[in-house]
This record gives sequence, C-alpha cells and structure tokens, in this order.
Amino acid sequence: MNSYRKHVFSLATILLLTLTLVGLANQIESKPFQTITEEILKKGLKELGAFSILEKITGIGPRLTGSPQAAAAVELMLQQMKDLGLDNVHLEPTQVPQWVRGLKEESRLVSSVFGTLPLSICSLGGSIGTPKQGMSAQVLEVKSFDELKDLGDQAKGKIVFFNRAMDPSLLDTFAAYGGAVEQRVQGAVEGAKAGAIAVLVRSMTTSLDNFPHTGIMRYSPDIKKIPAACISTMGANLLSDTLKKDPKLQVFMNFDCQNLMPVISYNVIGQLTGTEKPEEIILVGGHLDSWDLSPGAHDDGAGCAHSLEALRLLKELGLQPKRTIRVVMFMDEESGGTGGRDYATASERKKEFHLAAIESDRGGFLPLRFGIGGSEKVFQNLKKWESLFLTLGMLGMHQGGGGVDIAPLAKGGTVTIGLVPESQSYFDVHHSGRDVLDAVNSMELELGAIAIAVFAYVMAQEGIN
Amino acid sequence: MNSYRKHVFSLATILLLTLTLVGLANQIESKPFQTITEEILKKGLKELGAFSILEKITGIGPRLTGSPQAAAAVELMLQQMKDLGLDNVHLEPTQVPQWVRGLKEESRLVSSVFGTLPLSICSLGGSIGTPKQGMSAQVLEVKSFDELKDLGDQAKGKIVFFNRAMDPSLLDTFAAYGGAVEQRVQGAVEGAKAGAIAVLVRSMTTSLDNFPHTGIMRYSPDIKKIPAACISTMGANLLSDTLKKDPKLQVFMNFDCQNLMPVISYNVIGQLTGTEKPEEIILVGGHLDSWDLSPGAHDDGAGCAHSLEALRLLKELGLQPKRTIRVVMFMDEESGGTGGRDYATASERKKEFHLAAIESDRGGFLPLRFGIGGSEKVFQNLKKWESLFLTLGMLGMHQGGGGVDIAPLAKGGTVTIGLVPESQSYFDVHHSGRDVLDAVNSMELELGAIAIAVFAYVMAQEGIN
Repeated sequence: MNSYRKHVFSLATILLLTLTLVGLANQIESKPFQTITEEILKKGLKELGAFSILEKITGIGPRLTGSPQAAAAVELMLQQMKDLGLDNVHLEPTQVPQWVRGLKEESRLVSSVFGTLPLSICSLGGSIGTPKQGMSAQVLEVKSFDELKDLGDQAKGKIVFFNRAMDPSLLDTFAAYGGAVEQRVQGAVEGAKAGAIAVLVRSMTTSLDNFPHTGIMRYSPDIKKIPAACISTMGANLLSDTLKKDPKLQVFMNFDCQNLMPVISYNVIGQLTGTEKPEEIILVGGHLDSWDLSPGAHDDGAGCAHSLEALRLLKELGLQPKRTIRVVMFMDEESGGTGGRDYATASERKKEFHLAAIESDRGGFLPLRFGIGGSEKVFQNLKKWESLFLTLGMLGMHQGGGGVDIAPLAKGGTVTIGLVPESQSYFDVHHSGRDVLDAVNSMELELGAIAIAVFAYVMAQEGIN
Repeated sequence: MNSYRKHVFSLATILLLTLTLVGLANQIESKPFQTITEEILKKGLKELGAFSILEKITGIGPRLTGSPQAAAAVELMLQQMKDLGLDNVHLEPTQVPQWVRGLKEESRLVSSVFGTLPLSICSLGGSIGTPKQGMSAQVLEVKSFDELKDLGDQAKGKIVFFNRAMDPSLLDTFAAYGGAVEQRVQGAVEGAKAGAIAVLVRSMTTSLDNFPHTGIMRYSPDIKKIPAACISTMGANLLSDTLKKDPKLQVFMNFDCQNLMPVISYNVIGQLTGTEKPEEIILVGGHLDSWDLSPGAHDDGAGCAHSLEALRLLKELGLQPKRTIRVVMFMDEESGGTGGRDYATASERKKEFHLAAIESDRGGFLPLRFGIGGSEKVFQNLKKWESLFLTLGMLGMHQGGGGVDIAPLAKGGTVTIGLVPESQSYFDVHHSGRDVLDAVNSMELELGAIAIAVFAYVMAQEGIN
C-alpha cells in the first residue's frame, strides 16, 4: 500500500467513525417518534392512569364554578401535580361568577282536559329564579327566533317554549348542538323581547330521556330578565303533544336559583420545563369546573385527566422535552370562560410564548382526530406527524380547532388545537345527571391522554414550523 | 354559411345532443355513489331503524342455540323480512347442538384461614356438570399450558385455575382476546391431560368486574371430560391473592349443565333480487343465536340489526341493485358454527355465486373499518371505494377479514369481509350479563348498518373486480 492510499484509507476510516458516532448520538438523543408513540401507547393502556385521575376528580362531585367543590378540586389537582413532581406548580387567580341552583326546582303541566302532569325541568345556569310562589302561564311553542318574531304579540304574558331538536341526521353531533343551542343561550332575551314572562327550552341532547340538560344562558343589559329553564326531551315531547290537543294548558314553574357575588377561584398549572427552550410552551389542558347535576366525568373531568396523564406518561418514560410542556386546568369554562381569558392576559405570560395549545373538552370517548387551528402552512407542517396518530387508531388531523379556554391565546399567535373524540354519545350525557364516571370507558379515556402526550412531545421537540 | 360548414355544424350538434342524452341517461341510472352514501347516511341517522330491530331481537331475551328463544327469534326475523317486502324470504334448516345451563351454579372458596367466600362463576358452554353433590378440591393456578406441563403431576386431583389475563396493552382488544381464549376453549382438555378434576378459567374480558363471561369450550374424543367453568375477573383476583396466602385452600363448585340431543334450527334468509345478475350475490349477515346470560345485544343482535337495516335503507330509498343483496341471519355461531357451514353447502348454493359476504359480529359500536379477505388484487379494487367510508367517519379498509359464519363460503371463492367497529368496550360486555340493549348507542349502531348498506350496494352495482 503506498502512502497516498494509506492517507485515503485513514480519512475514510475517520469519516466512517465520525458518522457512526453521530448516528449513535442521534439515536440516543432522539429515538424515532414512532417508537416513542408505541411506548407511550403500551404504558398508557397498561396503567390506565387517566381513569385513576378521573376517579379522584369525580369523587369530589359536581364542580360548579364558584362552589366549594370547585375549590376542593383546585386543591386536589395542585397536590396531584406536586405529587407527580411537575415543575412550577402553582395557582393563578381568576374572578368567577357564582350562580347557585337553590333548593326548589319544580314544574308541572296543568290541563283541564288531561289533568296535572309533572315535567322534568331544571333552571339554566345564570337564570334568575321565579317569583317565590312560582308562576303559571299558557305556553307558546316555537321552533326558532324567526317564528317567534312572526307571531307578533302572541307571546305576551306567556311562557315561550323553544322546542327545536338537535338535527339527528348529522354525523357530527357538535354541529347538531351548534344548530340548536342558541335557544338555550339567547332564548330568554328573545322571549323577553316578545313579551314572554319565562322561557322553557328543549334539552340539548340527541337522546330521548327524562333528564334535563342544563347549560349557560345569557341576559342582555337592556332587556328584561325573565326566568329560563330547560326541559327533558321526553318532557318536551309530552308538552308539545299535549299542547296540540289542549292549547290552553298552563305550565307551572317554581325555582329559586340566584346569582351571588363573584368570587376568586384559580387555574391550576404545572409543567415539564423544556431543556433547551423553556420559554417556548406547548400547553395541554381542560377545564376543572363542571355543571352541578353530575360530577362532569366527560365534561370536563376527562379533559383534565387527559392533560395530567399526558404529562405523567412523558415524565415516567423519562422523555425530557426541549420546549416546556405545561398542563393547565382552567376554571370556569362553563359560566363565562374567565379562567381562559385571565390565563392569557396574566402578567406571567409576557415573558412566555405559547407555540401551541391543545384543549380536550369534548369528552373521554375514543379519540379520532386533532382539529388544528391557525394557518394552512402550520396545518401542513403538523400533518406530517399524522402517521403517529394512525398508530393510535385515530383518523388523523383536520383543519380548524381549538377550545373555549385556549381561544384567548390565539390572538398572541398560539396555534390552538382541539382533541376530537367520537361524538355519538357525548350529548347523551352532556350537562345532565348522566355525566358520571360509569359513562367513561377507561381505555377510550386513556387513548386521549396518549394522543395528547405524543402530540405535545413531538411539538416540544420539533416545534410547529 | 357554406354547405361544408353546415355539415360540420349538424354533425357537431348531433354529437352534442347524443353526449347530452347519454349523460342524462347515466345520471338517472347511476347517481354518484357519494350522493347515495350521503342519502343513506341521512336517512339512517334520522330513522335509527337498526335500533328498532335490535329492540325486537333483544326483547326475546337470550337466544342460546337450540333454545325456545332462538326458535322465537327465527320466527320474528322471518316475519320482519316479509313485512319489509324482501324477496325469497325463507328458512334453511341446520342441526345444532343443545347445551343447557341447568338450575344450579354455585362456587365458593373455602380457606381455613380466611373462611368461606362466594366466587362468581358460571359453567362454560358445552361443559358437563359436576357430580350432583358438587366437588371440592385444592387449586393449582397457572398462566399457560406450558406452565401446566412443566408442573408435572402437581395438577393431579386438583382444580386447575387458568389465570392469564387478556393483554391490556394491546389497542386491538380482539388480539388480546385471541391471546388468552385458548385457556377457555382448550383448558378442560389440557387440565384433564394433567390429571385435574375440573378447570376454572379467568373470564375473557378487559374489565375488572364481577360478571362471569361464558363462551364455548371443547372436549377431545380421547381425553377424559372434566367440568369447566369461568370465574369473574374480580373473583379470579380474589382467588389468586388468597392462594398466595393459603395455598391449601379449596374451591367448591356445583353446576348441573348438560349436553342434550341436537335439534333442528334455521338460518333466516331474505334478499333484494338483482335486476341484471340475480344469481350473483352479495351477502350481508350476522348470527341470531347468543349466549344465555343476556340478550346478546352486541353479540350478535347488533350484526342482525345491521344487516336487516342495511336492506331496509336500500329498499326504501328505491335503490334496486344489479346483483342480489341477501341478508342471512345465521344460527349457531356460538356453539359450533353449524349454520354457516350448512348455508355454504346447501343444495340451493349450487346455482348461485357469492361474490362477497360481509359479516358483522364485533358488536354495534362505532364502525371504523372493513377488513377485506381474499387477494391483494381484490383488496386494491375494493379500496378505490374507501372515500365513501371516510364520509361516514370511518378509517377505511384493511387487508384480512371475514367472520365465523361466512368463512365456509371462502372456499368457493367468495371474498369475505368483516365490519370492524371500535373494540374498546366490546369485551366489557361480551358473553356476560352486561350485553344488554342499554349498552348500545343507537347512532353508533346505525352507522354500522349505513356502512354495510353502502358497501353492499356498491359491490352489487360494480362487482368486485
């Protein structure tokens, strides 16, 4: 071998060795995301940690904004985050409204032809109560605000009964909800404008049951406040059928809910601090408050359990993120969204930049998709990770998404992302007495946490561009 | 205009007219499948016909092969098919085994340290009973047949307790079932070989509950028949934990199930006869028999409801198929598969050719995929329709699939296809007292029927090549 050849040989050897070493280092530093996804999947399904968290959350009971139970949930989650060894565990205050249901909640249909029949109703969140002795009036059934307007002064002195069902022919039940929920939210305002003394709203559910499904309603500053209640779908059908035969029947309603003074509550925050870019944040979250008719297992105990379990999985697998992954359990999504707004504008946010925020607030059912807010470019960038979610049995990603609590972050350029699970059963339980732990499948719930863990970790390592 | 130009003009006009007419004719004859899919989806979700059928089926109660309830279900489905105006509605006989559970079914753990504790067990389908006075013996816990063999003669005179759980870390619960179910099916044979006097098998379920989940077990001609029962997962954990502390504890079992003489039962058949190639058949089906601990809402009332509802949707939308679409409700999938075998070999089959058969026997949960049996070429051909199923919110198609009842048709060249719904909850209810109508979501169920209707119709119009 001549010296020239030797020289070439040595160079080649060094090059090869270098490449090998770089390769090895890369392998150690960044296991392929596919492998990591499979590890997270396996650990998650084996341990079902999200269900354990959800058991604790629902064990407190309903967590109505401003209630002692909501305060207890804040303490519980703070302790859970500390026990898990998260960084920067703390509370951030938010002033929340305090509506209370009261003790009386009764309603009946009174017909000279059919006698007296009980109706399953409940007052809507934010509503004033009825006069102390209750109220009785004839009923005007309508399907829309336009129909109400067209009826001129026929609503005067009556209870307006908004009875438009969620469209059953839509595959996406959230679209069906969106097409009907204005009756609940704006019904009292539109009813009062037409001269009604109260409104009764068909429950927002796809199921035919005898549970009233509550939810927020709003008043308008210049329009008279009138009581607003929702009625079970079976009650709504009974009332509608009986009205056809006896249009002069009356409905009696008596409830003593009221709006008390706002109180201070808290968002609960913890994180895995990023090793390279700690000030860049990937947020995962849900809301800790629920309605008061059940412990809110799906809405949104599931979202809180998803988020905290996602961080547990990453931490226990020793996956240290380059950017910070932060869990936020927001307070008061249901009664006004104050927690989400205050989080976005808190002074702490000034030194931080939230690249992306994932919210889970559509229940703990089988996760099917991530809905990605922001630009087409961001969507295409994130879509390259879609195969990881196919591994988890999901459909992938679609454009458009977010959540009530993270929406205020979008103004600052944060990409908002919503977890989209199967929606067929969600409105069966939503805001009703049926939203209990028993309605949650532990594997389906866990898969949501696994999906969020994978997505948060990938974005923490690779960014979003 | 000169005559040449005129000539060209006329020709162009004729051509244009012809194209327009052909176009119109095509439009009338074949609305795009995408449009048809959307129409089927809308009608199905609005009417929820599958749930109505399932209410009727489950209303009969458990439909154990050979039972009076199974016979009643045959009559009910025959009448339903006639009422729907299907063609060629008829029964085809099949001789089925007749195992009955008996009246006694009790078991307890007897420990000198921990006292007497009741165990939730049930005998397995096909098992012989215990001696009349019951039997008591010490227990040998094993996780596999290999472990049992390695223990030599330690099983002699004992009850062998097979306690290998379904692997919780698998996303596909059917794979987890496949990895554990040999204990139930072959446990008595392996136990008897090792000298055991009976076997007790951990229930095949992913949930921790106190329901025994039954199912078929088998004997071998040359091996002694010993009684076989399954125990709830909570019971199995209790037994296993207590055994660690008191290895000498005994289990008492007493059940009086027995195998009676085979009886004649029936497959129930009806169809939409093809307008162009009536002898070419696309079969859709499920099995009408169930286990005896519940009315088999998911297993396989759902498959029967899926199949009949698919034909109802097509018929009522006026979609006349070119090839025949046939619904078959098979008898005796659970206790031996005689219905499926007899259907494939019946003399009627000689003049028919089944292009494809779709079986639904994985419950009425959210449909996610079709599993396609047969060759790669057929798979690629059928995969071109995948976008239709994405419209229905499904993941699409994968290779490999079929079902117990349609498997015998595969020999004759039929492409066997299985509907694959979400599987996370299936084994919670499977073969147990929990498989009731209340465990079925009417929309999820309907989506299965819709998917089958679309797929059957597309294949009936376009063939499979």
